Amino acid sequence: MGDNNMTATMIQSVTLDDANDTLVILDQTLLPNEKVFLQLKELKDIWDAIYHLKVRGAPAIGIAAGYGMYLGVKASAAATYEEMADDFKRVKEYLGSSRPTAVNLFWALDRMEARFMQEQGKSVSEIKEALRQESEAIRAEDEQVCEQIGEYALSLLQPGWGILTHCNAGAIATAKYGTALAPIYLGEEQGYRFKVYADETRPLLQGARLTAWELHEAGIDVTLICDNMSSIVMKEGKIQAVLVGCDRVAANGDTANKIGTSAVAILAKHYGIPFYVCAPLSTVDLQCATGDDIHIELRPDEEITSKWYEKPMAPEGVNVYNPCFDVTDHEHITAIITQNGIAYPPFADSLLAMFAKKDKE
Amino acid sequence: MGDNNMTATMIQSVTLDDANDTLVILDQTLLPNEKVFLQLKELKDIWDAIYHLKVRGAPAIGIAAGYGMYLGVKASAAATYEEMADDFKRVKEYLGSSRPTAVNLFWALDRMEARFMQEQGKSVSEIKEALRQESEAIRAEDEQVCEQIGEYALSLLQPGWGILTHCNAGAIATAKYGTALAPIYLGEEQGYRFKVYADETRPLLQGARLTAWELHEAGIDVTLICDNMSSIVMKEGKIQAVLVGCDRVAANGDTANKIGTSAVAILAKHYGIPFYVCAPLSTVDLQCATGDDIHIELRPDEEITSKWYEKPMAPEGVNVYNPCFDVTDHEHITAIITQNGIAYPPFADSLLAMFAKKDKE
Repeated sequence: MGDNNMTATMIQSVTLDDANDTLVILDQTLLPNEKVFLQLKELKDIWDAIYHLKVRGAPAIGIAAGYGMYLGVKASAAATYEEMADDFKRVKEYLGSSRPTAVNLFWALDRMEARFMQEQGKSVSEIKEALRQESEAIRAEDEQVCEQIGEYALSLLQPGWGILTHCNAGAIATAKYGTALAPIYLGEEQGYRFKVYADETRPLLQGARLTAWELHEAGIDVTLICDNMSSIVMKEGKIQAVLVGCDRVAANGDTANKIGTSAVAILAKHYGIPFYVCAPLSTVDLQCATGDDIHIELRPDEEITSKWYEKPMAPEGVNVYNPCFDVTDHEHITAIITQNGIAYPPFADSLLAMFAKKDKE
Repeated sequence: MGDNNMTATMIQSVTLDDANDTLVILDQTLLPNEKVFLQLKELKDIWDAIYHLKVRGAPAIGIAAGYGMYLGVKASAAATYEEMADDFKRVKEYLGSSRPTAVNLFWALDRMEARFMQEQGKSVSEIKEALRQESEAIRAEDEQVCEQIGEYALSLLQPGWGILTHCNAGAIATAKYGTALAPIYLGEEQGYRFKVYADETRPLLQGARLTAWELHEAGIDVTLICDNMSSIVMKEGKIQAVLVGCDRVAANGDTANKIGTSAVAILAKHYGIPFYVCAPLSTVDLQCATGDDIHIELRPDEEITSKWYEKPMAPEGVNVYNPCFDVTDHEHITAIITQNGIAYPPFADSLLAMFAKKDKE
């Protein structure tokens, strides 16, 4: 996959094969049973991969969109910037229609467009090269953010520790490393030999299908448990730290993440185990004062009653409550780990300070 | 089903149809998709129903064994007590082989045998009638225990409350009413209109398949959630009490119950919600000092990785940890509700007092 500074077994879910005009994507819908890398040459196939969630995870979607934008324009026969602008617009609208609610998709497309507009007056080959660089920058910057989060997080951990994680904040959702799993991968390279416990994460089973899969694939010691077993593994002394990702962090540190995260945090506090949130600063929303301002999306009943199963596992017509996320109170969070450093309580101050810092490198 | 003092829709999972020499059993393996009552006339079929878990729940298994013992001896052509004793022994050994680890199965068979031995010298028809009475007594006593637990528990609840339960401590596991669900059924008759939240209870999904099914079947307002959603429903104010059953209560009140129960108790304490254990005194083990003395059974990996699914939901070869139970610390239990009254902390004293009390009626 064109990258040598990580263990050979670590998966990268989205990469560019520029020589062959190909976007290479790990088809996450086939996990954990099949490991298939799709070789996407046609724009239609890239659209399809995003639409059908073959690529998932906000950073990975953004990276795929950036590469898709580049490959779409690279195929353009336009002879001038102006002609190319028509093609650019067409490709952008098309890719944007693949997943209209994915914020990171539009962020990446807009960023590509801004770069395109900066190149006005250049030759078409120069413009194409600029777009290639920009799409690679999107990927490289995400990798760097993940690696920095991983290094900061690793500074909080000790060799041999048992680490519990929930849902998938892993390598396959990002450029590389992941967020919550980044210190696991970095530590593995340094001989930390963590013992990871992965909550299966009902109802969509991201912990079983994705986290357990990618860690097992990388040769890391991972044990799958049901969500309701986090208490017993903590009580039995198997866990020394909890690491989770996040969808959105409010200015006071309240954190929205996959349903069940708040329970893990309360249990960790009860058992005296540190609970760490790994958060790229792009997920910290200073406009959002507290968790009370975060809207919790409700998902279809079928995800709980019948999805994955041979036949329904709940009586027909029963009420179902299926919130997608919950909010972990900032009082239950030991620290929030960003690419610019580790924020400790009170988070209202420490998160602001993270934004004020320059990037580490 | 020959009983009129409960709502018409309430399920009884094990009953005797003496006029037709038939044991009637709800086939719990077909839930929640099919409601099938098996009409069992042959001893082989009764053995089969116990062996294949068509009847489940310790009390229900004991009741089925008692009825099976009666029907097996009723079919005997013996002319004397001595001849009948051979048949009794044969039937007892046969039924005992259906589920050798089910304590309540042997308890019921031994009780039937003790009664049989008391009848020495009686005519065969008198002996058969005595065995019928004994088997009915096993059922009736369990019903009475459940009803008394239900009445005591109901005294702690208020109309309109939201009640969370975990696993299945319901009517179909007992003669009637269940333990943790008994106050729900009794309250429903009195217009309490509880809103019940049922944890689905991974990995075997007893909450989804059984609890949600039996409450929905009885017309009670029940909402199915995943185990990792108990925190959010408590936080959102939907829950005013937690009611669970138990497998074993230690002398100090530590309680072994289905995996995940200890997490629910810790969350309830965090949110200031009372947590009640419904426990027939037969489950209180005064010989067991604390929860540390309770052995936690580990179950097969497949229950988590592949059971119920169309295809495996975890990577092949991944480590799995699958404890069947956990122990809820007595400090997280508001009260333990027995058929003889409500035990409050300190449980070491109050549980002893429950044994000292005479039965309520």
